[in-house]
Amino acid sequence: MDRVRTLKLTLAYDGSRFVGWQRQATGDSVQGLLERALTAIEGAPVAVHGAGRTDAGVHALGQVASAQLAASHDTGTLLRALNAQLPYDVRVLTVEDAAPDFHARFSARRKTYRYLLRNAPFAHAFERAFVWHVAETLRVEPMQTAAALLRGTHDFAAFRSAGSDVSTTIRTIGRSAMFEAEGWPLLGGAAAGRLIVFEVEGDGFLRHMVRALVGTLVEVGRGSRPPESMAALLRAGTRGEAGPTAPAHGLYLVAVDYD
Amino acid sequence: MDRVRTLKLTLAYDGSRFVGWQRQATGDSVQGLLERALTAIEGAPVAVHGAGRTDAGVHALGQVASAQLAASHDTGTLLRALNAQLPYDVRVLTVEDAAPDFHARFSARRKTYRYLLRNAPFAHAFERAFVWHVAETLRVEPMQTAAALLRGTHDFAAFRSAGSDVSTTIRTIGRSAMFEAEGWPLLGGAAAGRLIVFEVEGDGFLRHMVRALVGTLVEVGRGSRPPESMAALLRAGTRGEAGPTAPAHGLYLVAVDYD
Repeated sequence: MDRVRTLKLTLAYDGSRFVGWQRQATGDSVQGLLERALTAIEGAPVAVHGAGRTDAGVHALGQVASAQLAASHDTGTLLRALNAQLPYDVRVLTVEDAAPDFHARFSARRKTYRYLLRNAPFAHAFERAFVWHVAETLRVEPMQTAAALLRGTHDFAAFRSAGSDVSTTIRTIGRSAMFEAEGWPLLGGAAAGRLIVFEVEGDGFLRHMVRALVGTLVEVGRGSRPPESMAALLRAGTRGEAGPTAPAHGLYLVAVDYD
Repeated sequence: MDRVRTLKLTLAYDGSRFVGWQRQATGDSVQGLLERALTAIEGAPVAVHGAGRTDAGVHALGQVASAQLAASHDTGTLLRALNAQLPYDVRVLTVEDAAPDFHARFSARRKTYRYLLRNAPFAHAFERAFVWHVAETLRVEPMQTAAALLRGTHDFAAFRSAGSDVSTTIRTIGRSAMFEAEGWPLLGGAAAGRLIVFEVEGDGFLRHMVRALVGTLVEVGRGSRPPESMAALLRAGTRGEAGPTAPAHGLYLVAVDYD
C-alpha cells in the first residue's frame, strides 16, 4: 500500500442539474460524483470534503475539495483521469498535493461569491440557468452604497436561513461591491440589457447569506428600501426585516483562499 | 379588418433544443413557435419567413424574420406579447414596421456568422451547448492566414453540403477573421483555456458552408493542412478535399443586413 496523501482539488461546475454540492439520498451531487470518480481511481472508498456546501442550482468557478488517498499517480494523471470520469458539467481545474492536515472546509480563510443579475425588460435567451432576471429597472448607485455598508465585522443574523446551525452569526466581510459588466459580448449580451454583478468576499458565510443579501440589495435597487437601512438590518438581526432569498441559479462560488 | 402591414422581427435564440429554424413534422422549430405566437395575436394564421434557415443546435443572436398581419397593436405591445408567449430560449429583440415588400430572406444583402471554439485540454463546465471543444492545440496564426484567403468572390462548391439546391455556388465574402477572445470572464472563462472565434460576413452562404469552413480551418490549426491550401480548395471545388463539417452548436447567426 502506498503512503496516504492529501489532495487539494479546484473545480468548476454548472449547478443546474445537481441537488447541490452535498451527497443526498437521491439525485446527483457534485460531492457524490467526485467521490465516485476518486473511489474508482483508488480502488477503495474515498471521502471528499468541500469548502462550501453550495445549494441546488448554485454554480462554482473555484470550489475547493480535499481528499485523502493512497493512489500514487502524479497530479497531471489524476486531473485527466478525474475529468474523463466526471460528467461535462463538473470540471476539475487543478489537482495539487497538500499538507497532510489540509481540509478544504476547516482550513479555508476566505471565500468569494459572485451573483449575476440581468436587469432588462426581457431575459436573455442563453442565460436562464445562469443569472437572475429582474425586469423592473434597478438603480445601481444606491445598491453600491448599500453593498459598501456590509464591509467590516457584523452580526449577519438578519441574513441567514432558519435552521442554520452555527456557533456565531458574526462574520467579517472584506470586499462587497456592486458593478455593471458586459457579461458575454460574444453571445450578444449587450442586446439583452444590463448585467449587474455583486461580488462579496468574507471569512465565512451563513446559510443562504449571499442570496439574502442580494434579495435585500435588489429591494434597494427598486427603491423600496433606502440603502442606509442595511446598517439597521445588521443591528436588528431579524431575518424577517431583510429582503427575500434571491434564486440559487444566479450565485457562483468564485474562489476559496487558504493561508 | 385592419390594413395588412409587414413586420420585421429581430430575434435571438439558444438553438440547443430546437429542430432548427424551419418547421418540421415533429419537434419544436423557431419558425413554428413564432408563427404560433403571431397567429394567437392575429387570431388568424400568420406565416413567418426567416433570413437564415439555421440547423438544429445552431444559435442566433440576430436572426431576422418577416411576417404580414393585420393586427394594429403598436410595435412595443407586439414585442411584449411575443416574448410573453415564446419560451425563454427564444427572445424577440426588436419589432419594426417594414416596407410592404420587405422579405427577411429575399431582401437580405449580407449575413454575419460567428463560430466559437474552445481550445483547451478540457471543456468548460458551462459551455457544452455553446462552443466546439477541440482538445488538440491549435495554432491561430495559420488559421488567420487561411481565413483571410476566403475574402473576395469565390466558388464555394468545396464547402457546401451534398443536396444543396442553389443556382450558383459563387459567393462574396467581405470579412473573414479568426481571433482569440476572453469569452465570459464572469464565468471563469480564462481558467478554461483559449476561446478562438471565427467571424465571417458575406452576401450569402451555402448549406453548412460556415461549418465546413471551420472544419477545414481547424485542420489548418492542427497543422494537418497548410493555410495556402484554402486557395486550391476554392479552385478545385471538391467537397471531399475540404475538412469535415464542424458541429452545429458552435455556430451563431449574428446579424442580417438589409439595404
